Amino acid sequence: MENEIPEHCPGVQSEAAGKASTCDGCPNQKICASGEVTVEDPKIMVGIQERMLNVKHKILVLSGKGGVGKSTLTSMIARVFAQDLTKNVAVMDIDICGPSAPRIMGVEGETVHQSGSGWSPVYIGENLSVMSVGLLLASPDDAVIWRGPKKNGLIKQFLSEVDWGSLDYLLMDTPPGTSDEHLSIAQYMLPCQLTGAIIVTSPQEISLLDVRKEINFCRKVNIPIIGIVENMSWFVCPKCSKESEIFLATTGGARQMASEFNLPFLGQIPLDHRLTQACDEGIDFFEEYSDSATASAFIQLVKEIKAHIKE
Amino acid sequence: MENEIPEHCPGVQSEAAGKASTCDGCPNQKICASGEVTVEDPKIMVGIQERMLNVKHKILVLSGKGGVGKSTLTSMIARVFAQDLTKNVAVMDIDICGPSAPRIMGVEGETVHQSGSGWSPVYIGENLSVMSVGLLLASPDDAVIWRGPKKNGLIKQFLSEVDWGSLDYLLMDTPPGTSDEHLSIAQYMLPCQLTGAIIVTSPQEISLLDVRKEINFCRKVNIPIIGIVENMSWFVCPKCSKESEIFLATTGGARQMASEFNLPFLGQIPLDHRLTQACDEGIDFFEEYSDSATASAFIQLVKEIKAHIKE
Repeated sequence: MENEIPEHCPGVQSEAAGKASTCDGCPNQKICASGEVTVEDPKIMVGIQERMLNVKHKILVLSGKGGVGKSTLTSMIARVFAQDLTKNVAVMDIDICGPSAPRIMGVEGETVHQSGSGWSPVYIGENLSVMSVGLLLASPDDAVIWRGPKKNGLIKQFLSEVDWGSLDYLLMDTPPGTSDEHLSIAQYMLPCQLTGAIIVTSPQEISLLDVRKEINFCRKVNIPIIGIVENMSWFVCPKCSKESEIFLATTGGARQMASEFNLPFLGQIPLDHRLTQACDEGIDFFEEYSDSATASAFIQLVKEIKAHIKE
Repeated sequence: MENEIPEHCPGVQSEAAGKASTCDGCPNQKICASGEVTVEDPKIMVGIQERMLNVKHKILVLSGKGGVGKSTLTSMIARVFAQDLTKNVAVMDIDICGPSAPRIMGVEGETVHQSGSGWSPVYIGENLSVMSVGLLLASPDDAVIWRGPKKNGLIKQFLSEVDWGSLDYLLMDTPPGTSDEHLSIAQYMLPCQLTGAIIVTSPQEISLLDVRKEINFCRKVNIPIIGIVENMSWFVCPKCSKESEIFLATTGGARQMASEFNLPFLGQIPLDHRLTQACDEGIDFFEEYSDSATASAFIQLVKEIKAHIKE
């Protein structure tokens, strides 16, 4: 079975997409050759590039598997970045069918405004803003029942029409997998000096299995990988304070996998019921639990990220 | 923002798709009207219907959010069904980009064979078989980097070409969300007397938020809902035996949500590190831990499912 894009993929944004000799046998050959993914309105690409000129670090947050804490980590990393009040930080949620950034960041129900300079994101603080399809829905329960091309269109709009202003960090939260959203964001962001991707996993093999796919995806489409974060690494029982590994690292966990792929290991975050509750309620975990081990783990994680993106 | 398919959607498989007055303003109107989703090779639909004539109960397993245990629950429910040796049971994994059924069911590395009567699924036991894109890959780490239409094609092949034989239960494990795979499976299975969908969630609002979208999706495309299961409801500390709610039901959990939507609540499953380990290693949890509370919870869950699908 031909299951992946070829080793020497010319890239979806290339003129040779679908036409290079290495495209033969690739499942995406037909769609690439059709021009559906390559022949973009050049004005749109220029629009995206202009917006991105004002963004210093453009960071994708990826995972293979769902439910490993991608959105939680994205919001927490953004909050730590934003603790430095001299920096401007934003979260762009491209999980179109399952947007959770508005709830986690405490702005569910707020509305995006449109002005002459584009869509205004919703601000959580002076220097922290968010854009999500969840902020465009009449009700948070509404389902966005869209096939790929329609999702692609919205991602394009987010990239070209949101007026972020000048940003130091733009974190892009993605859905799980290696499909439309991922190909689209790669297509649009690679020509804009994408900083790279942070890959999130939980410790068990079922999650690592999908993360290896995500790493192979990044390598095929030339997305630089900043490093790997392991979330849900252990749980501290609030009654007896003993640690349990709920998602046991039966095959060595993320640290070993990172070393096998020769990628930076950025750190481990514990499973913390106070964190899941803070995300559910949209409150700032760092305000409530600044002294917790979980808060320290995030601060250490952001230090590692900063070290790897060469501030 | 026009975010959903209209209240009186004629259905993607209908001749009126994209053309009915209620289609005006629907984001899928153009794609439905284009015929891309409706004009199927009639031979394929006949092929699917012929295969499905031999399947008594056709059950979708859905969730809004990823990582809530859809694949774990699918495999565990299948194993409980298969404990009745007079029944034939199968799992079809349509999570194309993140297939975990082969690992969880202990058949990673096995190969699908092709014969005159179609693709043979891989057998876990006498009366339990599985088909997954994971069984078609050269390596389990290979990424399937496919946009929607290609994923759609494979789902069609799975439905029309897999030689399941005669089945009592076919469980279909899906990716999270409400996009291509979900529209495709609805399109192909609704004319085949789909039994219905089991919707899986974890207790916290961030998961329920996406589940409400999934319920609205099912209602819009006329997928009957068998009921809601809450997974990861509590964790028993292996050291002190005290229960912790790691994913706290800050908004009442799945039971309350089921009652608000007037849907059956099928039960709760605890978070159990022995279960995540069994899934990682592909071993049969029921053989190893038949006396556990978790095993009992699954047996009770299957009783509830059977009661609601009118055996």
